[in-house]
Amino acid sequence: MMKAKVHITLKTGVLDPQGKAISHALDSLGFDGIEDVRQGKYIEIRLAETDAETARSKVEAMCSRLLANPVIENYSIELE
Amino acid sequence: MMKAKVHITLKTGVLDPQGKAISHALDSLGFDGIEDVRQGKYIEIRLAETDAETARSKVEAMCSRLLANPVIENYSIELE
Repeated sequence: MMKAKVHITLKTGVLDPQGKAISHALDSLGFDGIEDVRQGKYIEIRLAETDAETARSKVEAMCSRLLANPVIENYSIELE
Repeated sequence: MMKAKVHITLKTGVLDPQGKAISHALDSLGFDGIEDVRQGKYIEIRLAETDAETARSKVEAMCSRLLANPVIENYSIELE
C-alpha cells in the first residue's frame, strides 16, 4: 500500500480571493507583518499499489484528469 | 522574510465527504485500487519576520484562532 500526498496550488499570477480573505481576516485579528497568503488543496490518496512508478503515473493521471485544473493550477506529488 | 507552509487535515475518525466524493469520482473515471482519499487544506503564508521562533509562534496562533478548527482538524507548520 502506498500513500500519495498531492499539493494543488494556484499558478503564480492567478488571483487567489480565498487567500486574500484569509489575509484580511488575520489582519483584523491583529496579526501584523503578513505579506501574502495563498490557499491550496492538499489531498492524501491511499492506493493498493506496491510499485512506486506505477503509483506515481496513476496519481499523475488523477491530477490531470480530475484533481487539478492545469490551466490555472500546479500540482506536486509525493509518495511514501 | 519567512514562508510558512501550513497543512490542515481532518482528524482521524472525522467524516470527510469531500474526500469520499473525490474517491467516487476517481472510481467512475476507471481508476482502481483506491483505498481512501482525504482532502485537507494547504496554506502558504509569507511573513515579514526573520526570527524562526517568533514566526512559528505567530503561525501557531493564526492556526488556532482562525485557520483550523481544533475540534475536528489537526494542523502542521513548516517554516522556510
